[in-house]
Amino acid sequence: MASSTAFPGTVSADSINDVSGSVWPESAKRNAAGALEIDGVDVRDAVTEFASPLFVLSETEVRSRAARYRAAYTSAGAHTVYYAAKAFLSVAVARWVTEEGLGIDVASGGELAIAMRAGVPGDRLLMHGNNKSVQEIDMAINFGVGRIVIDSFEEIARIAESAARHNVVQKVLVRATVGVEAHTHEFIATAHEDQKFGLSASAGTVDEAVRRISKLPSLTLVGLHSHIGSQIFDAAGFEVAARRIVSLAQRIYDEQGIEIEEINLGGGMGIAYIEGDDPLDVDAMAAEIGEIVAKECAEAGIPLPALAFEPGRGIVGPAGITLYEVGTVKRVELDHDQIRTYVSVDGGMSDNIRTALYGAEYTVTLASRLSFAEPVLSRVVGKHCESGDIVVRDCWLPGDVTAGDLLAVAATGAYCRSMASNYNQLPKPAVASTRDGALATVLRRETIADLLALDPYAEERG
Amino acid sequence: MASSTAFPGTVSADSINDVSGSVWPESAKRNAAGALEIDGVDVRDAVTEFASPLFVLSETEVRSRAARYRAAYTSAGAHTVYYAAKAFLSVAVARWVTEEGLGIDVASGGELAIAMRAGVPGDRLLMHGNNKSVQEIDMAINFGVGRIVIDSFEEIARIAESAARHNVVQKVLVRATVGVEAHTHEFIATAHEDQKFGLSASAGTVDEAVRRISKLPSLTLVGLHSHIGSQIFDAAGFEVAARRIVSLAQRIYDEQGIEIEEINLGGGMGIAYIEGDDPLDVDAMAAEIGEIVAKECAEAGIPLPALAFEPGRGIVGPAGITLYEVGTVKRVELDHDQIRTYVSVDGGMSDNIRTALYGAEYTVTLASRLSFAEPVLSRVVGKHCESGDIVVRDCWLPGDVTAGDLLAVAATGAYCRSMASNYNQLPKPAVASTRDGALATVLRRETIADLLALDPYAEERG
Repeated sequence: MASSTAFPGTVSADSINDVSGSVWPESAKRNAAGALEIDGVDVRDAVTEFASPLFVLSETEVRSRAARYRAAYTSAGAHTVYYAAKAFLSVAVARWVTEEGLGIDVASGGELAIAMRAGVPGDRLLMHGNNKSVQEIDMAINFGVGRIVIDSFEEIARIAESAARHNVVQKVLVRATVGVEAHTHEFIATAHEDQKFGLSASAGTVDEAVRRISKLPSLTLVGLHSHIGSQIFDAAGFEVAARRIVSLAQRIYDEQGIEIEEINLGGGMGIAYIEGDDPLDVDAMAAEIGEIVAKECAEAGIPLPALAFEPGRGIVGPAGITLYEVGTVKRVELDHDQIRTYVSVDGGMSDNIRTALYGAEYTVTLASRLSFAEPVLSRVVGKHCESGDIVVRDCWLPGDVTAGDLLAVAATGAYCRSMASNYNQLPKPAVASTRDGALATVLRRETIADLLALDPYAEERG
Repeated sequence: MASSTAFPGTVSADSINDVSGSVWPESAKRNAAGALEIDGVDVRDAVTEFASPLFVLSETEVRSRAARYRAAYTSAGAHTVYYAAKAFLSVAVARWVTEEGLGIDVASGGELAIAMRAGVPGDRLLMHGNNKSVQEIDMAINFGVGRIVIDSFEEIARIAESAARHNVVQKVLVRATVGVEAHTHEFIATAHEDQKFGLSASAGTVDEAVRRISKLPSLTLVGLHSHIGSQIFDAAGFEVAARRIVSLAQRIYDEQGIEIEEINLGGGMGIAYIEGDDPLDVDAMAAEIGEIVAKECAEAGIPLPALAFEPGRGIVGPAGITLYEVGTVKRVELDHDQIRTYVSVDGGMSDNIRTALYGAEYTVTLASRLSFAEPVLSRVVGKHCESGDIVVRDCWLPGDVTAGDLLAVAATGAYCRSMASNYNQLPKPAVASTRDGALATVLRRETIADLLALDPYAEERG
C-alpha cells in the first residue's frame, strides 16, 4: 500500500496523527476534539485569537530546555550557558532564559537592545559578530556587556579604544578558527579556515592577537572562542576542535605566559526536525564534550579552563510550531502514475525560508482535527509568487485535507520568525506563547500599516 | 599574473574601476573624485544622507526601462505590460511605472494596498496568487481590479461568490501550466507540471475550469495565463509555451466555442548580473516572442489574441544598487598558496538573500574612490552570525580596500529589498531614489524602535 511506505525525510503514514515524537513540544497532544494542544491550549483557539499564520512558542518548553541545557553544561564544566539570540529573540524570551539561569549571546545592536529592554544584567551578556560597528561596540561597552568576542585584528583596536574612552577594562575572548566544520552527521577537519569568522589557530594569528591584546590596558583577555557549525548530532567534531584549541592555549601559555582561563565552544547542538533525526540528547552531548575537553587538557598538561557554550536552536527550536490555514489543494500527476498533492497555506517562504535556503526538512500534521482518511503524498507550499516557495517538501497528509483546515509544522521556533521577510508584502505572523492553558503575545502580528509606515508617499489620499 | 586572470562569475581585474557595463545603471559613472555617481548623485553623499547600507534606485532608469518594455511589448502585440510588483514595490515606484504607461501585477493584499495608495486605477491592475485569501479577493473586487488570474478550482467559486456579492462581473484569466520551465540558458519541457501554480494545460483541467467559469454570471473569462520561469535569456522556452497555449486556446474554441481574447505570457525576462551574462535585449526579446505567437496562431488558424506581459526584474533590477561600508578585511590562506580576502560589510543576507538562496552572482566595485592597487581575489560577506552570509562569492577588488570604504553591488533593484529580513535584528536599509542630481526617499530606513514596536514587553524601563 503506497500510503504506508515511508517517504524520505517525513513521518510515515502510520503516525500521521501522532504528535508525541521528539520533534513536537513535550506538552503536545491531541485533545478530545482531535485538535492539537500545546500546554493545554487548543491551536484553534490560538488562531482565533491571533490569526493565521501563527508561531506558537511554548514558554514551558523554552524554560525547561533552557534549564536542562544550563544543568547539563554546568555539570560538564561551563561557567555560563549563553542563549544564542539569533535563533529567536524577544523581550519575553530574553527574560525566560535569564530567569532559567542562562546568559545571552547577542550579535548586533538590535539583539543587545532587546536584551537591555528585558533587563538582562550586562555581565550575563556576550557579544559576537564578525563586523561589529563602532556604534555597536560603544553600546555594548557603555551597557557593561560582560564579554566581547574579538573576531579580527581591526576589532582589537576598536574595542580597546572604546573601552578606554568609557574608562573600563573590557573582558574579551578571541574567536579562533580551528579548521573543523561540523554539520549533522559529518564533520570536516582541514588545516585552514576558508570562512569570514575569526582568526586562524594554525597560522599563528590568534597568538598575534593575544600578544596585541595583552599590551592594551583597556582590554583583558579571558579566553578563546571556537564555534564549529550547526545541527551537530554527535561529539566527534568537538573532539578535534577541543584538541586544537587546547593545543593553542598551551602554546600561548608556553610562549607568552598568558593563561587561558576560559574556553567557549560555541553552539550548534542539533535538534530533530523529522522522525529519522537522532541527535545525542542534551545531557549525553554535554557529558561527552566535557570529558573530551578534560582529557585534552590532561594530555596537554594544562589546568582545565572554565567552559562556556551557546545553544540557540536547542532551546527554542523544538518549543515552537507554525500554524497555517489551508487555502487550496491541488493534485498533480507525476510520472509512473504517482500523484502529488499540493497543499497551499497562507504563509510560506516569508515566515520559513529554511526549506528553500538550506533544503531543510520539516514534520507537519493536520492540527485542527483528527483524520483517518487515506494518507497522500503531499507538498506544503506557501502563497508567494515563486515556485520554490515550499514549506514542507515531502510529507504524508490525510487525503481529506481541505481549505480551512489548520496545519502545524514542528520545530520552527528557531531561525523562522528571526529570518522572516515581507516578501510579497506579507506582514510577519504573530508569535504567541503558551503556558498552563493560557496564551500571551510574544510579538504581535505585523500589519500592512507597519509596512507602509516606512513609505513617505503612503499617506491615505483624501 | 594572477590578478588579470578572469575568475568565474566576476568582472575581470582589468575592469575593476569600470562601471560602464550593462550591469550598472546607464547613468553610472566615476566622477572627478573617482567616486561612483548615479544620475549625477555621488554615492558618498547618498550614504551621508541615508546611512549605510543603502539601496539606491535610479528613478531615471526605472522610468526608461518601464517605457522601453512598454514600447517593445506593445509593438509585439501587448495590450498591457504589467510591472511585477513582487520584484520591488513602493508607492513611488508604483507611480513611476504607471506614469510610464504600465499596469501592475499584484500578488497579495499588501501589494494591492501599495498600488491603491499610489492612485493606480483598478483597471490597470492584475491580481495573481496561488492562494489568495477571501479577504484579498474581496479587497481586489471592491477596488475594481481589472483582471484576476485564477489559479485553482477553489478560486473559481471564491471569486465568483465575491464578485456576485459586490454585484460586478469580474474579468478573469486562467493560469495554465504548460510543462515548460525556463531558467537562464536552459529550458525544460515536460508533459506534466510538478508545481504549485495553475491548472494543467495537458490534463484538461484548464478546459474544465473554462467550462465552469463560463457558467458563472459574475465571472467573464478574458484569457489564459502562462508563466515559464525567471532570468530567461532567449525566446526558446516561450516558443514551446506559446505553441502549447495556442493549441489549448484552439481546443477551447473548438470544443466550447469560447474565444480566448487575451494571452498573458507572464514575465521572466532576464538581466545581466555579471559581465558574462548576455540576455537578449528588450526589443529583440519582445519582437521574437511576438513573432512566435503570431506564427503559432497562424498555424493553428486562430485569430491573434491580445497579449500581455509581466516584467519585474527587467525594470527595477538594473536600476538599483546596494551601497555598503566596509568594516573589516581578512586575508585567509587557501590551498596552493592562494589567498582569499574576506571583505566584511555592514549588511548581508538580511538585505540580499539571493546569493545564499539561489547561488546568485553579483558584480561589486569600490564605490567611494578609484584604486589602482593590485586586485585581489575577494569575497564580500555580511555581518550576520552565519558562515553562509555571503553577498558576492567571488570577485576582484583592489588590494587596498579597507574599513570605511564604500562598496557598490550592481543590479540589486529586484528581489533584494523586497525579500529583506531582520535577521540578527538588523533594521532594513533605506531605499533612496536618484534623478537629475537629486536624492529622494523611496522607503525610509527601519529603526530598532520599529522592530520593538511589535514587542509588547519592550517599553523602556524607568
